[in-house]
Amino acid sequence: MNQVKTIFEPERVILIGSNKTREKVGMASPELFRNVAYNMRKFFRGKTRILDIDAKKGVPKKLPKAPDLGVLMLPPKQSIDHAWRLAEQGVKTFVIITGGFKDAQRQLLLQLKEKHGVRILGPNTIMGVINTASGLNTTFERGTMPKKGNIAVVSQSGGVGAYLLDWACFFGVGISKLAFMGDKIDVDDFDLLEYLEKDKNTKVICLYMEGTKDGRKLVTKAAKIVKHKPILVLKGGITEASAHRAKSHTASIAGSDHIFDAAFKKAGMIRVENIEDLMNAAIALSKQPPMRGDNVAIVSNVGGPAILTADAVAKNGLKLAALSKETKLAIEKKYPGVDATNPIDLIADARAERYSDVLDLVLADRNVDGVVVVNMLKSTFFKPKDARIIPKIAARHPHKPVVDVPAGGEDFMLVQRVLANTSIPVYNLPEKGVQALKVLRTYGLIAGKH
Amino acid sequence: MNQVKTIFEPERVILIGSNKTREKVGMASPELFRNVAYNMRKFFRGKTRILDIDAKKGVPKKLPKAPDLGVLMLPPKQSIDHAWRLAEQGVKTFVIITGGFKDAQRQLLLQLKEKHGVRILGPNTIMGVINTASGLNTTFERGTMPKKGNIAVVSQSGGVGAYLLDWACFFGVGISKLAFMGDKIDVDDFDLLEYLEKDKNTKVICLYMEGTKDGRKLVTKAAKIVKHKPILVLKGGITEASAHRAKSHTASIAGSDHIFDAAFKKAGMIRVENIEDLMNAAIALSKQPPMRGDNVAIVSNVGGPAILTADAVAKNGLKLAALSKETKLAIEKKYPGVDATNPIDLIADARAERYSDVLDLVLADRNVDGVVVVNMLKSTFFKPKDARIIPKIAARHPHKPVVDVPAGGEDFMLVQRVLANTSIPVYNLPEKGVQALKVLRTYGLIAGKH
Repeated sequence: MNQVKTIFEPERVILIGSNKTREKVGMASPELFRNVAYNMRKFFRGKTRILDIDAKKGVPKKLPKAPDLGVLMLPPKQSIDHAWRLAEQGVKTFVIITGGFKDAQRQLLLQLKEKHGVRILGPNTIMGVINTASGLNTTFERGTMPKKGNIAVVSQSGGVGAYLLDWACFFGVGISKLAFMGDKIDVDDFDLLEYLEKDKNTKVICLYMEGTKDGRKLVTKAAKIVKHKPILVLKGGITEASAHRAKSHTASIAGSDHIFDAAFKKAGMIRVENIEDLMNAAIALSKQPPMRGDNVAIVSNVGGPAILTADAVAKNGLKLAALSKETKLAIEKKYPGVDATNPIDLIADARAERYSDVLDLVLADRNVDGVVVVNMLKSTFFKPKDARIIPKIAARHPHKPVVDVPAGGEDFMLVQRVLANTSIPVYNLPEKGVQALKVLRTYGLIAGKH
Repeated sequence: MNQVKTIFEPERVILIGSNKTREKVGMASPELFRNVAYNMRKFFRGKTRILDIDAKKGVPKKLPKAPDLGVLMLPPKQSIDHAWRLAEQGVKTFVIITGGFKDAQRQLLLQLKEKHGVRILGPNTIMGVINTASGLNTTFERGTMPKKGNIAVVSQSGGVGAYLLDWACFFGVGISKLAFMGDKIDVDDFDLLEYLEKDKNTKVICLYMEGTKDGRKLVTKAAKIVKHKPILVLKGGITEASAHRAKSHTASIAGSDHIFDAAFKKAGMIRVENIEDLMNAAIALSKQPPMRGDNVAIVSNVGGPAILTADAVAKNGLKLAALSKETKLAIEKKYPGVDATNPIDLIADARAERYSDVLDLVLADRNVDGVVVVNMLKSTFFKPKDARIIPKIAARHPHKPVVDVPAGGEDFMLVQRVLANTSIPVYNLPEKGVQALKVLRTYGLIAGKH
């Protein structure tokens, strides 16, 4: 357990690669080696020693002070050799980036583990690990680093991990840790969950998995974690055909999908359908409280999109909140043009003040459990900076989730920029805003039950 | 019918508004008037006469040459007065931007129609009409004009229309016509479909509706159109609660959702769930041929996302194509590192040449009806410009649809820029790419059956 912690929180890292060796399949190449070296130098605030085996002719017999993490970017045979040498010098944890290991070679790594008590992430992790708190970054995407936040991402697949990394960076999603499990011959989902359970920087855990060796153990651990931290899971390889590919891809058996589905449900893990849903749900859970009931209010400056939002409420099994008489009267007294029936249409000329007043009244209503704000710019008078009142008002009602939907393309980008570093999740489609509340409701039920 | 054509294709337009009158609810304001005037002057290639009723004290008794379209941005009473005066001078078509008309006022407009045989779009169209071919643009979003293309958008709601407009502009979706129906006291879905049926610039029709007066007539017309042009429909107000809001919003009755659903199916209209699906489906139908069978091949440079794509194929009721022996042998002979089992993983170092060769072989396979290309940048060697080969190879196989999924955030934007003006639809998520093929398959069945 402490060693898994070291994989994410080392003080001294040794990165070993080659400026000559090029191996297509396993991702060993001088360019990638240079990129990881660049990222470690640029971002990591601990000590990094970078070793080019061709330039230096192997690891020196005695390292001045033993690193606590070895990162290996060599082809299988050389990775194994160097791991043994490092272990003999006291290195206790390894991240093996490269792939293409045969079964016998995997066995050699497991023997290393047994003899020296080391822990190994990989091989075939492709991107390795990121810790935004310390700047540890063994990915070869030069200069790519997600912003600090409280969402941890664990991916079995390098491609899906890279995809999640790209998505997080582009949309400014705050990340605590990223780990790419690869072949997971040693450190696996269970170990990573166990570490993340206690990681103070992590509030939400995202898991992409294709298969697992000991499902029962994983699920038991997950059921414990979800009492205080939500776990979102995306499962790849749900059909026989795709499971076949998953098997050849990361050497694990996908298993029957409905068994996984039942296990996830029992453990209180929240299953999502795709990468976008995973990120959208994680953002909601990382920024807003669970929803304590099913009743959703909609506060909008446009009629049609408010109707689409109301439709989405029904499709997601939530309810349109029936506002109390007092709330309706208070809104209509202050704004005689507004019909305070949920979904509330504030009319196209609503700006910060009207949103502020109505949102505050609606959140104070005991019949309301959460709010979707819809604030389009096109065809209205709303300006992006008006959105600043949303986190302010939401903060007054800390137990009721609020999400914002500046529906559209450009409109979304403009408002998203204003709210990116606030507590308010922002979505470009009414349906995504409502889905976010649905996830918050689901987690409310899970955290309440366990 | 010819008059509805004039609403979209006028030669001389008169725009009437006021630089003084400000009316919140109905969207009459000097600022909006100036914006529409700006857009008409900037984009419209016909003649535009702009009349400020306060500056000029009403319409001159005799217009030098009668305009064929009057665009009215005045409060109800004044809009009606001016419509009558213009009709007396021979103006035969009107777009009424402003809302807030009472029943009696609507009756006055219908009387005008009867007496002078004019046709009226609106009132309460909010954004009016756009015709990208002539530059006609009565929207008040200053300087906003979608790029030319073959997708027509008809929206009952101004807000949803504005949302679609914003989406189309931001993602560079090619548009032929946009029409905002508003209260549709005269020109309605039927009239617009009838016009778009014959419009040579329109290949795909997108419809947002909350309700309709004569569903049977609409559906009969639609069933005829879908033989040669697909119709996508998004229906707002599916529940009692949201239907209530729809009624107060655009004065129409939403009706029971399952009746609509059955009618859409019978007519061969393709129903979508939200704005994003609407745009994504329209892009697919506007750029690619219908799919003639269920068999999908996946050509990817990453394993995990290829598995998620394969999962999406199953979830959408399509099949993973079983490649013929010849195709597999040809691929594996040329690229010994590649396992040519669908989904095909070209491995992370695949660039233009490998994609080109394999895509060509796969599209030539009689067992393949359509292809999803997955080309991530992160964690691979693929460069955005490599994507240029996709439209080239796809063009050699004109009867099989191809879509591209550069899965991710930044990765998507980079590749999307390269392919935006080509025949290849681009999506940021495997599931959206597969959904696009599903829509092409659905339309293949509809066009084949009718």
